Amino acid sequence: MTYCVGMMLDAGLVFMSDTRTNAGLDNISTFKKMTSWETPGERAITLLSSGNLATTQAVVSLLEERPHAHGERDPSILGVPSMFQAARLVADTLREVIAQHDAAGQQADSAFGATLILGGQIKGGPPRLFMIYPEGNFIEASSDTPFFQIGETKYGRPILVRAYDPKMSFEAAIKLLLVSFDSTVKANLSVGAPFDFHFYRKDSLQLDTTGRIDADNPYLQLISQGWGDALKNALESLPDFALE
Amino acid sequence: MTYCVGMMLDAGLVFMSDTRTNAGLDNISTFKKMTSWETPGERAITLLSSGNLATTQAVVSLLEERPHAHGERDPSILGVPSMFQAARLVADTLREVIAQHDAAGQQADSAFGATLILGGQIKGGPPRLFMIYPEGNFIEASSDTPFFQIGETKYGRPILVRAYDPKMSFEAAIKLLLVSFDSTVKANLSVGAPFDFHFYRKDSLQLDTTGRIDADNPYLQLISQGWGDALKNALESLPDFALE
Repeated sequence: MTYCVGMMLDAGLVFMSDTRTNAGLDNISTFKKMTSWETPGERAITLLSSGNLATTQAVVSLLEERPHAHGERDPSILGVPSMFQAARLVADTLREVIAQHDAAGQQADSAFGATLILGGQIKGGPPRLFMIYPEGNFIEASSDTPFFQIGETKYGRPILVRAYDPKMSFEAAIKLLLVSFDSTVKANLSVGAPFDFHFYRKDSLQLDTTGRIDADNPYLQLISQGWGDALKNALESLPDFALE
Repeated sequence: MTYCVGMMLDAGLVFMSDTRTNAGLDNISTFKKMTSWETPGERAITLLSSGNLATTQAVVSLLEERPHAHGERDPSILGVPSMFQAARLVADTLREVIAQHDAAGQQADSAFGATLILGGQIKGGPPRLFMIYPEGNFIEASSDTPFFQIGETKYGRPILVRAYDPKMSFEAAIKLLLVSFDSTVKANLSVGAPFDFHFYRKDSLQLDTTGRIDADNPYLQLISQGWGDALKNALESLPDFALE
């Protein structure tokens, strides 16, 4: 499993992803699920991936290779003129990779599936955020649905729904995401730290702060331990049910 | 879908269940998923059910009929000597009902499955709480795992994990459960109010307060609206992430 979130703020875009992959409970590894591309001053694009690791790695490798292949006629992630075209390129690549593996033998529901979050900004357009499905179609975030989750989405969703505010600072958004990730980690063994994060500052057209928060990071510990008490206080602040 | 919780407190047992059943998104109905039996001064037992409605109704009907069938040699829910035997009786009934329907035609993974929570007290023993699986086996709650959820369990779990306290009053427990149910309702259309609840007061050996909270109940509205603000305040009480 996996847990990744991409979120639109007034100030830009925030991304966070866990790093655990597993094949069964007794075969776990750490892989980065966040990939970024930039041409400073012109574009900055970030991709989060959940699903079959062979599929998502193949998608990223194909996207990585194209910009370097001279004479390549296909558009590349560093060449497409808009975020919409970037989403189409990534979606087409995803569908091709899945179709290739499916043809090689998978019979039932595709075990090669993957779902992606793509966000960023290309000069001339606003920051945009997409969720891309294994079928190669995609949807875009809006003020009604300002964030996307992929992977193990349920445990961490209620806090996002309740506490998300587009006016949040990046610092507050990271706090919110860590609470959401911590709730998920506490409930599902197949989601785990370290967590990768990335802020994209609107109109900066370059990759801004990127970092990794390890399981023993003092701030994560503080949030994880402090959130239980904060929740209990929140519950106490509401009146008890009155028995008649 | 469904959402039900059974919880052990020092003061006794608390149960809550939603009432929505659905076959597709466009065919929804309201059914009570909580059933209770009592012999005042001797036993009080409550059953919560999730899963195939035909199965759970058949289980309840069979359990209801047996105590009234004079000369019936099978033990009845009002006759078994302990909560463990009550759980065995319910589990056996559940397995029989599923096997009967499965034999009539279901080929793949059973669509007739159901999962139950059974709790209560029979004179001579302590209050006990069980989760019963469609295979007819069951597990018992303990101080390590003091509550069980069935149905759509994920959205409402983090708050229970963080804020549950065995020393809670019934009134505080209902508040906690309503927050958990409200988070679930906001995320899954197949879970819905009204919510049925029941408190069993330890050693009372009778059904105590039972009630139903409708969607327009003022207290539920207060919790639903107040929880968003309470959560935001909780988040604000923790320090923001520090960008270097």
